[in-house]
Amino acid sequence: MKLILLIDILGTIAFAISGVLTALNKRLDPFGILIIAFVTAVGGGTLRDILIDANVAWMRNLTYVYVILGSTIFAVIFRKRLGYIRRSLFLFDTIGIALYTIVGVEKGIAAGFHPIICIALGTMTACFGGVLRDILCNEIPIIFRKEIYATACILGALAYFLLHFTPISEDFIVIISGSIVIIVRLFAVYFNLSLPCIYRKDKLES
Amino acid sequence: MKLILLIDILGTIAFAISGVLTALNKRLDPFGILIIAFVTAVGGGTLRDILIDANVAWMRNLTYVYVILGSTIFAVIFRKRLGYIRRSLFLFDTIGIALYTIVGVEKGIAAGFHPIICIALGTMTACFGGVLRDILCNEIPIIFRKEIYATACILGALAYFLLHFTPISEDFIVIISGSIVIIVRLFAVYFNLSLPCIYRKDKLES
Amino acid sequence: MKLILLIDILGTIAFAISGVLTALNKRLDPFGILIIAFVTAVGGGTLRDILIDANVAWMRNLTYVYVILGSTIFAVIFRKRLGYIRRSLFLFDTIGIALYTIVGVEKGIAAGFHPIICIALGTMTACFGGVLRDILCNEIPIIFRKEIYATACILGALAYFLLHFTPISEDFIVIISGSIVIIVRLFAVYFNLSLPCIYRKDKLES
Repeated sequence: MKLILLIDILGTIAFAISGVLTALNKRLDPFGILIIAFVTAVGGGTLRDILIDANVAWMRNLTYVYVILGSTIFAVIFRKRLGYIRRSLFLFDTIGIALYTIVGVEKGIAAGFHPIICIALGTMTACFGGVLRDILCNEIPIIFRKEIYATACILGALAYFLLHFTPISEDFIVIISGSIVIIVRLFAVYFNLSLPCIYRKDKLES
Repeated sequence: MKLILLIDILGTIAFAISGVLTALNKRLDPFGILIIAFVTAVGGGTLRDILIDANVAWMRNLTYVYVILGSTIFAVIFRKRLGYIRRSLFLFDTIGIALYTIVGVEKGIAAGFHPIICIALGTMTACFGGVLRDILCNEIPIIFRKEIYATACILGALAYFLLHFTPISEDFIVIISGSIVIIVRLFAVYFNLSLPCIYRKDKLES
Repeated sequence: MKLILLIDILGTIAFAISGVLTALNKRLDPFGILIIAFVTAVGGGTLRDILIDANVAWMRNLTYVYVILGSTIFAVIFRKRLGYIRRSLFLFDTIGIALYTIVGVEKGIAAGFHPIICIALGTMTACFGGVLRDILCNEIPIIFRKEIYATACILGALAYFLLHFTPISEDFIVIISGSIVIIVRLFAVYFNLSLPCIYRKDKLES
């Protein structure tokens, strides 16, 4: 459990800092930066909790609030040097996405939803913080334009269900499906993979 | 009941394809296209269900999910030939809007809301999928700029309540008020009607 | 109680008119103007109620609906002359923000949330109508770019909690913390104060 708490916190830090970087890029003021950091970190889970009519996690557990506040202040102060921890941030982010996906899937199962809806809830938990961040910053969500990690989340969430048809134990299923999210994402970034482009190259300039 | 189910599915198809077309226009990737199709088709009803604190319909009834998935794949594959079924799509869309309006009004009544709120819920059900689609695609919602069908929904929803003061039976009230939505919309498109412009013509270039 | 009702109505009027002005600026049609007025006036409270899973206030109490409808019609008709009541509108707006902040904080306390969450709920009630207005109008929310009143709300909400450690009576606490919101905002506007700019001046052209 302590490992999961640690991963959760590292993921929240990475998400919050990604929000701060987008907000700085848009030259928002300190209040705007804080809101964007917050929405990026907890937006996906909040949307999930509203849809399944559950209590919103960060409103009852202040750990998230403190972590996001701290990360935001840290990121604003050291914004010129965040390049040095770029790799760590990317790793935290990837591990956080894997965890968020599994958490979303499990909350869906606990609420009695169909596997397809659970996969959607897992993907939403991991991806929609970034979607809300981009909408608040007046951009088309980057995840809709350029594959970042949605496919990794969907595949990991799918594996979670398929592995239940095998004799693998619950704990291992979580580890394996989480690892699938991480590996698919690392591969996609390393080999610069993305979903097949459905637009003709020659039209790309239009 | 089977007729209503059929209308519901045809409306969902038309809404999803409208989302796909907007997403293709913005050159979104397959994941983005799917999300926009989904949000366009079920966004209005989802917002309504969250506001009245009801269960979100598509999360418990997977018919919508399958129909939207199928429509999206169909529309992406045959995107160059959608022009051929343009008229059918417009018809499905119009009938779907009428049905969504009535469904929204009836859900409002069932939850014990005032007629004005029920009319707002009916209009929201029919119109806010498109609003969310446009926000996610970083556009001012088209329905706020150019009358598309909001007035048709409001008039149909209003008729639904007024007809209850007459001896007309419940079934007929649904048919008549739904027809009003359809007829007002067809008239508006055919004669290119819109809400009165409140801006002076001579300022239009500014 | 009658005073609070009056302040609430004046605040709603000021918020709705601010929505109308933004919508007119974007040349929206009458339906769009009405929706933006509505969202500006009740959006913050609606988001709060959804997050704390409470009944959405304007759906059960039609006073807001009538006030917003009336304000919108008034503001559209007299849009060229709204400059004459600019000062009154600013005053209503400021008093309304103070009231909305306190209402949000008190709803949070009633639902048993931690003071930090209550402060966030108060600020959200006062500020997020404007955020939703700007998103629907395809702008980065102005409150994220240029300090308007978020800090005033946060300070007033904070005072509300701190004053409970003093022997001051409940009624006075409400009046004092509301006054803090009003005074901080008036000072900020009068002396053109804003949150410290974290961007270097010389980079401002980039």
